[in-house]
Amino acid sequence: MAKAPVLTPQAEDFPRWYQDVINKAELADNGPVRGTMVIRPYGYGLWERMQADMDARIKATGTQNAYFPLFIPQSYLTREADHVEGFAPELAVVTHGGGKELEEPVVVRPTSETIVNEYFAKWVQSYRDLPLLINQWANVVRWELRPRLFLRTTEFLWQEGHTAHATYEDARDFAARIHRHVYADFMENVLAMDVVLGRKTAAERFAGALNTLTLEGMMGDGKALQLGTSHELGQNFSRAFNTSYLSRDGEQELVWQTSWGSTTRMIGALVMMHGDDQGLRIPPRLAPVQAVVMAVKGDDAVLARVREIGDRLTAAGVRVRVDDRADTPFGRRAVDWELKGVPVRVEIGPRDLESGTAMLARRIPGGKEPVPVERLAELVPGTLEEDQALLLRQARDRREARTTDAATIEEAAEAATAGGWARIRWADLGPEGEAALAAQAVSVRCLVAEDGSVPDADDAPGNVAYVARAY
Amino acid sequence: MAKAPVLTPQAEDFPRWYQDVINKAELADNGPVRGTMVIRPYGYGLWERMQADMDARIKATGTQNAYFPLFIPQSYLTREADHVEGFAPELAVVTHGGGKELEEPVVVRPTSETIVNEYFAKWVQSYRDLPLLINQWANVVRWELRPRLFLRTTEFLWQEGHTAHATYEDARDFAARIHRHVYADFMENVLAMDVVLGRKTAAERFAGALNTLTLEGMMGDGKALQLGTSHELGQNFSRAFNTSYLSRDGEQELVWQTSWGSTTRMIGALVMMHGDDQGLRIPPRLAPVQAVVMAVKGDDAVLARVREIGDRLTAAGVRVRVDDRADTPFGRRAVDWELKGVPVRVEIGPRDLESGTAMLARRIPGGKEPVPVERLAELVPGTLEEDQALLLRQARDRREARTTDAATIEEAAEAATAGGWARIRWADLGPEGEAALAAQAVSVRCLVAEDGSVPDADDAPGNVAYVARAY
Repeated sequence: MAKAPVLTPQAEDFPRWYQDVINKAELADNGPVRGTMVIRPYGYGLWERMQADMDARIKATGTQNAYFPLFIPQSYLTREADHVEGFAPELAVVTHGGGKELEEPVVVRPTSETIVNEYFAKWVQSYRDLPLLINQWANVVRWELRPRLFLRTTEFLWQEGHTAHATYEDARDFAARIHRHVYADFMENVLAMDVVLGRKTAAERFAGALNTLTLEGMMGDGKALQLGTSHELGQNFSRAFNTSYLSRDGEQELVWQTSWGSTTRMIGALVMMHGDDQGLRIPPRLAPVQAVVMAVKGDDAVLARVREIGDRLTAAGVRVRVDDRADTPFGRRAVDWELKGVPVRVEIGPRDLESGTAMLARRIPGGKEPVPVERLAELVPGTLEEDQALLLRQARDRREARTTDAATIEEAAEAATAGGWARIRWADLGPEGEAALAAQAVSVRCLVAEDGSVPDADDAPGNVAYVARAY
Repeated sequence: MAKAPVLTPQAEDFPRWYQDVINKAELADNGPVRGTMVIRPYGYGLWERMQADMDARIKATGTQNAYFPLFIPQSYLTREADHVEGFAPELAVVTHGGGKELEEPVVVRPTSETIVNEYFAKWVQSYRDLPLLINQWANVVRWELRPRLFLRTTEFLWQEGHTAHATYEDARDFAARIHRHVYADFMENVLAMDVVLGRKTAAERFAGALNTLTLEGMMGDGKALQLGTSHELGQNFSRAFNTSYLSRDGEQELVWQTSWGSTTRMIGALVMMHGDDQGLRIPPRLAPVQAVVMAVKGDDAVLARVREIGDRLTAAGVRVRVDDRADTPFGRRAVDWELKGVPVRVEIGPRDLESGTAMLARRIPGGKEPVPVERLAELVPGTLEEDQALLLRQARDRREARTTDAATIEEAAEAATAGGWARIRWADLGPEGEAALAAQAVSVRCLVAEDGSVPDADDAPGNVAYVARAY
């Protein structure tokens, strides 16, 4: 197989490798307005599969989908002081509509807590209406000065959940349930991503939240990427919007709330956590195409065999694509499927017909070997599951190998600036140490309890801070 | 069952009845910015089912989903003269982003032909790249001065397809295929909607199209609603954006294009075509809940039976909801399910336990009768299919009964202003007659050939114009 140097090697220039993959694997293009993106069919296909799986998990919690408007009156944002302070610098503002200047400018939603609360305040009357569990799949806009495709874009796609509960405990537990049983389970089991679950420090919290739970992943270059967040909003928004209910005891009470989001950034994470110098490696459970069956040459007998194998694998529950484009050289097609990260390639040439074999190439561990055609339908599903597990193991191994236990702030900074993560006791770091690290563009990604669980407070004894440079 | 007069009767005030249904069935609320809407979970559930079914049909044509940016540089719209003229009055314009005034204002997409062409021009190189078949599910904004929920909203949700072809014929055939085999098949077979397929006159065409194919439905008050459109764009946009390809003969040629859209307006159409004085009637094939199994009272034996029946119907492939909310009066719950248009209610009270029966209430034909419990799983699926067919027949019968064959423009205007449709030979109407009707707020909804097919030209001999007042 021809191996043209289509991508900048990771070791040479990781950001350029990333751009090359996005471009050559046809995931996305830059949009004409700075920071926007065009998600091409191959990239969007990944998003569609993420959506379908996440949507089922979200619905399994009892949450229902709805849709709130793109346009929010500017005055709504100002009602929660921290919230407006956090989002004001990133807003896109519509000043003209229908050929006229608007009386009140409207902002394009950067997130929907404010407009959701305006309606929750109408819909929630009594404790019988709680919990109210709503999610929406939507686009949001946050003006981005240093955009990077999928990672930081002015417009991105996401799901945002918004819930209202009668008690603090119920809201807290729901935020934790989304964090663990929707986000972490999905990322680990479908995306084969290694994630560290923790809580954000006060400095890194969502604007308007009491507590932000996060999932952090290590990318191929050792930097961190925040992969999803689940917030306890307390009563900050319900106070601002008077979202209250009549309790069982006949008292008017403010609701307790959560919000939580995950975005098209997950596609960028997929690229940077699993990709290598040959391109993407798509986890088999996510892959829109799990196996491509390729005709090496275009003669009729080969094409017939290729289609027959395609049918057999499809019958075995594999998502298959048949590549019978005999007018394009085999080597170019093989490089392209490799770039696109399709987990398994089954290659059939004229000589394979005589021997009754096919070449089985595995993208994730690499390598290929001849396999009897009649064993393919039995072999491929197991191979896909093995490779799914391997991807997660590789990501976990890398994170462990590149994480240093630091005793001092200096050691932590050194590890993080050298392209890895550091773990340091929060008691030894604290908000002042955090500020000192920030001067070196190093941040506390999250706090984790001594036993690896998510702590209840920043200052819980034994808390460990994960410290890194981040995208 | 209690029948409180929850809705304004249709005969008294149809627009108010519509507002009442949208509100009481919890489909949507008005948004805070004029013309925007909040789609509530029950309304959004209908949209999700529409999306899933349509998406499969769209993909079956070989079309792939992608996503283009919300923001379009204002200069793009001006490149196609008719297009900008058509959309300029409806644009929302972002003038500020990230705290600064933008150098070039950007518009919020009213539709995406222009930005799509910018990228098609990059992606299409040779005839091998054609046809290029792309769809996106997205929100769009068209500033609306007289908004009405679902029917005309400043922001709405839709799918918009955009395709590029090597020849005029291929583009024409694809636009027709979407019109007939995606839109009409979906509307008739899933939404149980009666639709007239035709072509728009020059006056009613999409801004920038050579030809617009439409589907028109008659609402409960005899007015027309445009339910979807499929456009032949010719080379208007490819000329403006230089979307060209190298042909087999080595010539650089402009592509031929189509675009086509269907929107959340279909939810409004569903309400107005099938609804009655008791509320919605949801077609069974669309209904998120096809059968609700209700406990009349909350004693344990009744609740156990209700759950058992729920399981049996689920096993029979029915989408079931169990209503065991014994703390809410039965009558109120029954009215609510009726309002929400759930096709079948199975009601179980203490006396039904002795007789081994259940009341089977059918929302679409109305009425209820006792049925042996052990026959339910066998009866309900057939009942749902019967009622699906009945809804379509009722809509078709009404349209036929309320359509007049008019010999003169005066007769056509009279029929349309009296709350019906008129059919008149296009040769007897023509653009001048069309203008005369417009003065009475009556429009030509579409042109249909003598044999009921979609004509190839406005002036094809024998063309008949369907004339009506429209939403």
